[in-house]
Amino acid sequence: MSLLITDIAELSTCDPAHGEGPTGVLTDAALVVENGEVAWIGPAAQAPDADERLSAEGGAVLPGFVDSHAHLVFAGDRAGEFAARMAGQPYAAGGIRTTVAATRAASDEQLRANAARHVEEALRQGTTTIEIKGGYGLTVADEARSLRLAREFTAETTYLGAHVVPAGTDADAYVALAAGEMLDAAAPYAKWADVFCERGAFDGDQAREILTAAAKRGLGLRVHANQLTEGPGVRLAVELGAASADHCTFLSDADVDALASSSTVATLLPGVEFSTRQPYPDARRLIDAGVNVAIASDCNPGSCYTSSMPLMIALAVREMRMTVPEAILAATAGGAKALRRTDIGRLVPGARADLVVLDAPSALHLAYRPGVPLVRSVLRAGARVA
Amino acid sequence: MSLLITDIAELSTCDPAHGEGPTGVLTDAALVVENGEVAWIGPAAQAPDADERLSAEGGAVLPGFVDSHAHLVFAGDRAGEFAARMAGQPYAAGGIRTTVAATRAASDEQLRANAARHVEEALRQGTTTIEIKGGYGLTVADEARSLRLAREFTAETTYLGAHVVPAGTDADAYVALAAGEMLDAAAPYAKWADVFCERGAFDGDQAREILTAAAKRGLGLRVHANQLTEGPGVRLAVELGAASADHCTFLSDADVDALASSSTVATLLPGVEFSTRQPYPDARRLIDAGVNVAIASDCNPGSCYTSSMPLMIALAVREMRMTVPEAILAATAGGAKALRRTDIGRLVPGARADLVVLDAPSALHLAYRPGVPLVRSVLRAGARVA
Ligand SMILES: [Zn+2]
Ligand SMILES: [Zn+2]
Repeated sequence: MSLLITDIAELSTCDPAHGEGPTGVLTDAALVVENGEVAWIGPAAQAPDADERLSAEGGAVLPGFVDSHAHLVFAGDRAGEFAARMAGQPYAAGGIRTTVAATRAASDEQLRANAARHVEEALRQGTTTIEIKGGYGLTVADEARSLRLAREFTAETTYLGAHVVPAGTDADAYVALAAGEMLDAAAPYAKWADVFCERGAFDGDQAREILTAAAKRGLGLRVHANQLTEGPGVRLAVELGAASADHCTFLSDADVDALASSSTVATLLPGVEFSTRQPYPDARRLIDAGVNVAIASDCNPGSCYTSSMPLMIALAVREMRMTVPEAILAATAGGAKALRRTDIGRLVPGARADLVVLDAPSALHLAYRPGVPLVRSVLRAGARVA
Repeated sequence: MSLLITDIAELSTCDPAHGEGPTGVLTDAALVVENGEVAWIGPAAQAPDADERLSAEGGAVLPGFVDSHAHLVFAGDRAGEFAARMAGQPYAAGGIRTTVAATRAASDEQLRANAARHVEEALRQGTTTIEIKGGYGLTVADEARSLRLAREFTAETTYLGAHVVPAGTDADAYVALAAGEMLDAAAPYAKWADVFCERGAFDGDQAREILTAAAKRGLGLRVHANQLTEGPGVRLAVELGAASADHCTFLSDADVDALASSSTVATLLPGVEFSTRQPYPDARRLIDAGVNVAIASDCNPGSCYTSSMPLMIALAVREMRMTVPEAILAATAGGAKALRRTDIGRLVPGARADLVVLDAPSALHLAYRPGVPLVRSVLRAGARVA
């Protein structure tokens, strides 16, 4: 069964080899799907025939967003904490501990329903691939459960037992657990391992111990690095060949050089800075130095409770000095690179037919029209899913 | 026919006399609609019976947004200009002249379809009342046509012949036209008159001439004031008893004092600063001085092409130091005040049953979850419209 998508005002292939500019744009284009993959792209006038047709009605088409950083296995929300923080008020409640307690107390069914709701919400906004981390269980059983549930929704699951040291626990003992028994329990459900390497969380030596143990078990690596302060996270990520160093807000020149000469992607999460009123990472500096950049949502109930990749594009442009095409690329092909995937994030022959049709004539509108729900329809592997 | 809305986790009446805090919140509430108006609000357990029922399914309910500032009669878009501006590049195209030329060249049917699309898009995001300005015609016939078309969509129509002086036109002659023949032609379709009072547009004397002429014809007054520089706009608005001074980014202490001791609302438009990378107005200073504040979209193809009132709430909190309840109030009751309306913007007995049901347990989520389409359903005068 083949499908011909017609009336595409602008097709962003997100591969510069296949069109104009960094996002490889074709105008007045068509696209053919076969067996869930892109079989053909080109000028509408030369399109081959197909079994079925779908009109984009003059909308823009681009790859489905690849959100390479999200925390979706949790219970409860922290709206009151958010409102108090934005009003500059101290808040007596427990921060991440609130979410850990609610997550531990929730049934599998509740956690599954909550994750499903967020995955569905992201899909309606054009996210066709999403990474999901654990990290709100912080016990052997709860981290294994979190990953087992995450695996129901995505192949891109990440073990994050080392999110914080639980209150009342000895840090060294917890590191040993996270590098040992907890890792053993979660690894069967995990593709990746991640550590929050930051002052107040895990230092460079602790992060190295956990990540090295994870690599030995065959997991790929990612690091929450340099979010709040300069530190060893980014260089550790590069040294260990991690797929991605995430946040990258406070970077030394040596950090930027290390990223630029590596295959580690710098994944920027501007929703966090938006929701915590912190300074944004400097995407311009990274791109100009030759670093591979992705943007992702970091969707989580504490520091950034949004699943909106379109808003991430708008923020990347407004606040991180990315051009609009750079931001679109970072949300698609960039996210794919951060997950070491070549089958998604681009619309070229052989790629999976994960795509978004916009209610707008150009993908530029994702930044030009911030906040407006512009996603008209979403296809995954060629099938309409939203 | 009466309608009982049940399972409301949180009802923001937006009238502090009817509940907790500035947004008058009731929890575990119900609401009864009769004849398109709110007939009853109160605890769910005490709700009277009604002919029909609608479950809010544990969502939050708040008044429909009142967007008191939008420019929706235009043709074309300026995505390329936006992308170039955000990339820091000069752009050779014509700015507002591009939109004026496209608007003049468009048929009634094209302008009507474009306005309808934007009104519908706003409605899906919870905007149940929208003000629509002209200002992209700049001839007698085109401004009259713009207002005639605007009137098809809203009672809140605003004559803005004095948007800019058209290229190649003598400023004094244009002011005379805008205060005379153009006003005469547009007035039958207009409720309000507005002038862009700014260096490079119309100075205080010119604005006064046009606004005074409009007031004599019975139009209410609004002023685009102090957007780019300090100037006479805000004080002129107060002096003439305008319903609203819009933008208010650059204010002297005298401007703030004048607003505080008047019934003129300061309407802040943070989408403009988001989309032009300009400094935001200081809402905190205004609120602390006792000024009535509204927030609105300023939806227009040049400086701010968004119709998203939820994003305006998030920006008001992030960038203008409003609390979340203050921002919600400014987007509902504040907008109503800026339009001198008492029948909308609040959910209290006697008010029009214009309301939004959120896919979230609290209206705080409008800022807590930026970019996420949270509007589940919209009622206008008690009837489901989205
Ligand atoms: Zn994270
Ligand atoms: Zn305006």
